[in-house]
Amino acid sequence: MKLDVCFTPAELAGLPLNDRVAVVVDVLRATSTVVEALANDARAVCPVRTPEEASLLAQRIGRDETLLCGERKGLRIDGFDLGNSPAEYGPESVAGKFLALTTTNGTGALLAAAGARRILVASFLNLSAVAALLAQDASPVLIICAGREGRFALDDGACAGALALALRDQVGRLTMNDAAAAAAALARPYRKSPLPVLKASAAGRALTAQGFADDLAFCAALDTRNIVPELRDQRITAAA
Amino acid sequence: MKLDVCFTPAELAGLPLNDRVAVVVDVLRATSTVVEALANDARAVCPVRTPEEASLLAQRIGRDETLLCGERKGLRIDGFDLGNSPAEYGPESVAGKFLALTTTNGTGALLAAAGARRILVASFLNLSAVAALLAQDASPVLIICAGREGRFALDDGACAGALALALRDQVGRLTMNDAAAAAAALARPYRKSPLPVLKASAAGRALTAQGFADDLAFCAALDTRNIVPELRDQRITAAA
Repeated sequence: MKLDVCFTPAELAGLPLNDRVAVVVDVLRATSTVVEALANDARAVCPVRTPEEASLLAQRIGRDETLLCGERKGLRIDGFDLGNSPAEYGPESVAGKFLALTTTNGTGALLAAAGARRILVASFLNLSAVAALLAQDASPVLIICAGREGRFALDDGACAGALALALRDQVGRLTMNDAAAAAAALARPYRKSPLPVLKASAAGRALTAQGFADDLAFCAALDTRNIVPELRDQRITAAA
Repeated sequence: MKLDVCFTPAELAGLPLNDRVAVVVDVLRATSTVVEALANDARAVCPVRTPEEASLLAQRIGRDETLLCGERKGLRIDGFDLGNSPAEYGPESVAGKFLALTTTNGTGALLAAAGARRILVASFLNLSAVAALLAQDASPVLIICAGREGRFALDDGACAGALALALRDQVGRLTMNDAAAAAAALARPYRKSPLPVLKASAAGRALTAQGFADDLAFCAALDTRNIVPELRDQRITAAA
């Protein structure tokens, strides 16, 4: 089975996507937040590029049914209902709601995957569920790391590698590109307890400095959710 | 001491370069070739983007004094004197000559470093010499991996990591970005014998398939050259 990793969305340039199952990873924190939101019965998460697009979408869907969600520089956007901390996405907040979500790196990566056969959302929270779905689907896989401001992010690289290792356990053998091989090597020591690599990452250090240290432990919890979010028709819901 | 790594030239976007010593790495094969050429007494290596620019430069310098060098898709360019195999760059070929060099990934990375305080050229062949110069210079360091067609390359990532480890041995402590930390972790098992990681890389496998397997062993030879090429005024010569 073929598995490639892109460490940033820019590395997608020139790659054919239409035969691929794309898996988007932004561990700190967008994809962890999406997993948590859907596990807590949000109706759908709609990724959008800008706060203005989020507001327009809320008007169109209905402001009462929609939460404005996301961050810039790690902090909740002015006038928005929720930031990008997965701990904010409990059932009391999100159940039954549409979530218009815009984040610095994660939503861009989700939108960059357009054209892939399927687009899934992964984090440490749902790693085994994603691996099981990929093994069952059996299509070539492309893991797209959101990265950080266009550069490699340690948290995403480690999660991509952990997913590669989990998938290899299921399917036996993977044909990997250079980034996938590097990610798998990087992930090996952190596979069962990713907190140290999240703490070491630039995103983890920035979040800790902003007072979001608890989010690191939250996002490092392995397989707390048995759900695979899938982006279809501009909305993310649980995969069938 | 601060050390950052960019896994592709695209990751440079938005980074201030003017206080940095940039170190360009394209292990298979452009930076290995540059090291070998200068060690064998080439007068200078001039990196250019296209074969046409190489020909124009040869006319300007004088065709007798200039060798046209480089590859496309791994093979010597039609009408050129030399390809991109470091084994071609012996003293009998290059001594006293100007070399106009254009390669798929490496020369682009060299030119992308424009604006850095200094621009050095590294490979496994001259790893310790580069580390010693960086330790002496004491400026913040930015290692720019050429990558492969805009994507992460295992050979370059491993060399960047090996250079980070060598520098850390000299200066004691490095403050590293996420890519540098990942590269250092990746390099650790290969630090003293990089041939296996070159063989595993996509570039290494492609070169082997093209009949250039000997180049992998050539480029994996650690510290065979005690020279640090430096790009100044569009020419690469040995650093003072």
